[in-house]
Order: sequence, then C-alpha cells, then structure tokens
Amino acid sequence: MDWSEGFIAVDWGTTNRRAYAIGAGGAPGDELEDDKGILAVPAGGFPAAVAEIRGRLGDRPLLMGGMVGSNRGWIEAPYVPCPASAGELAAHIVWAEEGRTAIVPGLSFLNDRRADVMRGEEVQMFGALAAGLMPGDGLVCHPGTHNKWVTMEGGRVTRFRTVMTGELFSLLKERSILSDLLQAPAAPGAAFEAGVLHGLSDEDLTAELFSVRARVLLGRAAREDAVAYTSGLLIGADLRTGLRRSAEGEIVVMGRPELTALYAAALRAAGWAAREVDGETAFLAGAKALAETLS
Amino acid sequence: MDWSEGFIAVDWGTTNRRAYAIGAGGAPGDELEDDKGILAVPAGGFPAAVAEIRGRLGDRPLLMGGMVGSNRGWIEAPYVPCPASAGELAAHIVWAEEGRTAIVPGLSFLNDRRADVMRGEEVQMFGALAAGLMPGDGLVCHPGTHNKWVTMEGGRVTRFRTVMTGELFSLLKERSILSDLLQAPAAPGAAFEAGVLHGLSDEDLTAELFSVRARVLLGRAAREDAVAYTSGLLIGADLRTGLRRSAEGEIVVMGRPELTALYAAALRAAGWAAREVDGETAFLAGAKALAETLS
Repeated sequence: MDWSEGFIAVDWGTTNRRAYAIGAGGAPGDELEDDKGILAVPAGGFPAAVAEIRGRLGDRPLLMGGMVGSNRGWIEAPYVPCPASAGELAAHIVWAEEGRTAIVPGLSFLNDRRADVMRGEEVQMFGALAAGLMPGDGLVCHPGTHNKWVTMEGGRVTRFRTVMTGELFSLLKERSILSDLLQAPAAPGAAFEAGVLHGLSDEDLTAELFSVRARVLLGRAAREDAVAYTSGLLIGADLRTGLRRSAEGEIVVMGRPELTALYAAALRAAGWAAREVDGETAFLAGAKALAETLS
Repeated sequence: MDWSEGFIAVDWGTTNRRAYAIGAGGAPGDELEDDKGILAVPAGGFPAAVAEIRGRLGDRPLLMGGMVGSNRGWIEAPYVPCPASAGELAAHIVWAEEGRTAIVPGLSFLNDRRADVMRGEEVQMFGALAAGLMPGDGLVCHPGTHNKWVTMEGGRVTRFRTVMTGELFSLLKERSILSDLLQAPAAPGAAFEAGVLHGLSDEDLTAELFSVRARVLLGRAAREDAVAYTSGLLIGADLRTGLRRSAEGEIVVMGRPELTALYAAALRAAGWAAREVDGETAFLAGAKALAETLS
C-alpha cells in the first residue's frame, strides 16, 4: 500500500485506543476513541479489532504505537535500546501485516544500576522534535499513568526514568483510606504548591500521605484541600526524582493538557521554567514522520 | 457489672474483629474472629453485633479497642493527645453502655508541622509495657495496614508517626501494573535486603517501584524475586522515616508475627537490633490492665 496517499495512526494503550485518519500530505481526517485498550481485546482478536478501525476510518495503511507492541499486545516489537534516534526507531518497526500494518517499538534504558522501558511516549517525543515543538537537547517530562523523565541529546533519547505517580494517585483515589478525600479534581493553588514543596524537599512520602487524613481528622487542614495537597505531594516526589539530573533552560512537559498543566505548575512552584506540548499533536507529528519512512 | 469476675476484650478493626473471653484472674477463655469489621456493621447495628459477641462468649462486661471508637464506628471516643500514659488512656474510656460496655480511645499527635492518629495500637503498647515485654523508653515499630513508629519515654507515648506501607503494598498487589509480580508471599533473603537497602538509602521510591517491572522485562532480575524486593523497598523507605529519630538499644517490633518477622529482618539488615513482640499477647495484656481500672 502507498503510505503517501494517507494512513491511519493508532495510539493503542492498555485501557484505551485512539485512531486518526491522516490524508495525503498529512491532512487530518476522522478519528475514533474508545475503551478497547489491549486488555479488552480477546486472545487472537487483534485482526478483527484492526479491521474495525479500518471499517470506520478507511482501508488504509495503519501505524500503531503503544502497548499493542508489548508482550501483552498483538505482536511483540522488541524495545530499541537507548540512546535511540527517530531513525533507529523507524528501522525497528515490526510488521503485523507486511507493508500494510506497522507496530512501532518502545525504548529501553539499561545501565549498571537501572532498567527502564517505555511504549508510546517515544512517538510523541520524536514527533514534537520533528514538528519543532521542542529542542533536540533538554529534559522532557511526560506525565500519564506513569510519568517519564526523558533526556534528549542531539535529537536522540539518551536516558529516561519512569515514576509511578499517576497510577499511585489512582490507586489511592479508588480504594485507599484516603479515597473519600480524593474524589474532586486536583487543581493548582496554595494547597497543591504546599504539597509539591513538601514532596520535593522531604523524603517521607509514604508517611506524609497518611498525614493528609490525620490533619483533616484533627482539624489542621481543610477537607477540600486534601486532593490538591496529595496530588502536589506525589508530583513533588516525582520532580525530586526527575530533577536530579541537572537541566538547563525550559523543561518540556508533554501529554494530556490537564496533566501537563499540573506538572507545569509544580515545576514553576519549584523555580523551573516549563513549556507545555500537547501530547496528541506530538503523537500525530510523530506518526507522520514515521510513515514518511515507510513509503 | 463486676469486671474482676471476667470480661470480654475486643480488638475491632476496619475489616476484622477479634474477641477474647477473659476469666477471673485473667485466665484465657474462648475466642472468636470474623470479618465483621466496622465497615461490615450496618447503621445502628453495633448493639446487635455486640450482643452476638456476648451470645458466643458469655454475658460479661466488654472492653473494645480499635476503629469501633472512630467516627466511622459505634460511638466516637475522642483521641487522647500525646504525651499520654496508660492512666490517661483509661481515664478517657467512653461507655457505650454505662459500666458494661467500654470503648478505649485512640491517641493523637500534633506539633507545628505534623498531625497523626492511632486507634488500637495504643492498647498493645501499654499492654506490652504492663507485661514487661518492653521497656518504658525506646522506639517501637508497629507494622500493619499502617505502620506506626512510636516513641516511648518514661512509660508514656510521647510521639508517633504513621507510614502507609502495608496499605500501599496491598494496593500494588491487588490492581497495579506490578500485580502479577506480587502474588507470592514476601520472605526475607537477598532480594528483600537489597530492597530494604535501596529504600533506606535512596529517595526515589515511586520510580524504583516501576523499575521492579522493567528489570524483569529486560532480564535484569528474576521474576520470583520481585515480591521480596518490592516489600523490602517499601519497608526500607518506611525505616528511613522511622529511624530519623535517634534510637538507642533494641527497637521493639510489635504486631502480627508474619509482619514483625519482615520488619525485624529489615532492621537487622540496616544494622539495628530488633525485639519482636506478639501483638495479640500485647493486646490481651493491655485489655487486662485497662479492665483492672474499671472494677
């Protein structure tokens, strides 16, 4: 199939999928978003799940990133080790259907002390770079279920570190002793900043989380501030890990706007400059750049 | 009713309750344990739930500690502020039925920076003290859903700090990206100690948790070591908080034996001496000491 006449880009995660029809020359077309993440696809069900996407968005070549290439997905696309460039990522694309249905691999990082993996964010990183939305050198923060702190050097991803902030916040919200305090959305403000500064400066996260409840019980904190403080506390501890590596200039914060707004507010509270990049825009730019290498 | 002729001691938690018949002179009698924690008791259901205990263990005076005295329990028994002695705890007992059914209050700690609460552990603390199982000065570690680090001075609880270790481990085990790695029991050993030392010395807990999965995916750690490493990591971070206050001599580790064994192993790996005290033994000793004040 001829990729230059248009294709479909799919961001296929664990619990959701988003698919975008992209016309010739990159013109945007129809989209679909649903909860058919990889865990919702039955064994052997990926050909049908992909046929459904083509039925809705057209019979075109299809490029997929995210957990669809993991060992729980359709076909495993082995991690490309860092340092890695956009070209190295493209060179390791795996074909689910030769020439027609492509799976983008994730990235891995290993050194003597650490091991880390990502799947999905790499398409956004190289997309933002290709679209001129961020420089080829610097620190990128990509919040989500798992936040990724990514070091870019000369247009390559040289190292990264994953922090489980989003998932921990969700677990605490869903069924912990703090649940009833965490149901409202977290918003920047004084309570959020106090949490960020505590998380950044202290190292007692698992104790301070319980204090959130104790302060409310003992009348030392307002119940309605608990969610912002807790979010700030977890993000502050996250920044503490991510900002260990010295960074110069702006930190790029990429992802869903409601999350990039929180992380950018946290970075500013900590004295850093932050530039937000929309994750969907970056994904589409990345998918187009990869598709160009497949024509 | 005459407490000296025997009574029933109830340790009534959020998800479980344990009741013990105690004969004249403190002789042990029948026991019951079930999952009728306070969250399983319907509104207005405590008189019937207590009548059920008396139906099984005898029509005797009854002393209850734990979450039954919280704002989600039967009758709220307000927290006694630290520093607090066994006598001060006894003086603030609340009667659900005058002279016949007693609720032991919890303890609170407040200073300029911190707020904390406990309910249930205080009966064990003063019980271990009354039974000569621990000295009146020193540091006590009480693991459970929430670990409590308690400073005893001259037989009083002067301060304490709660760490959410047990609850976080349960959340990660039940439904996180690490779930499939955490189903086996955690046991002391090399992987556990490596986790403890990392948690003690580093401050990147929320990132290191994700590394557990990445190391297995990338072949850098054995899948079967993940649960012990993760348990060690959380307990190490817990020790990091608890050991901030200088402690001399042995640290008393009190609670359920399977948990005190893990914490004692962690403390020894960190270079500390630890003495384990069985929480049930301490609870019964504490209930008897409190009952003596009610006769």
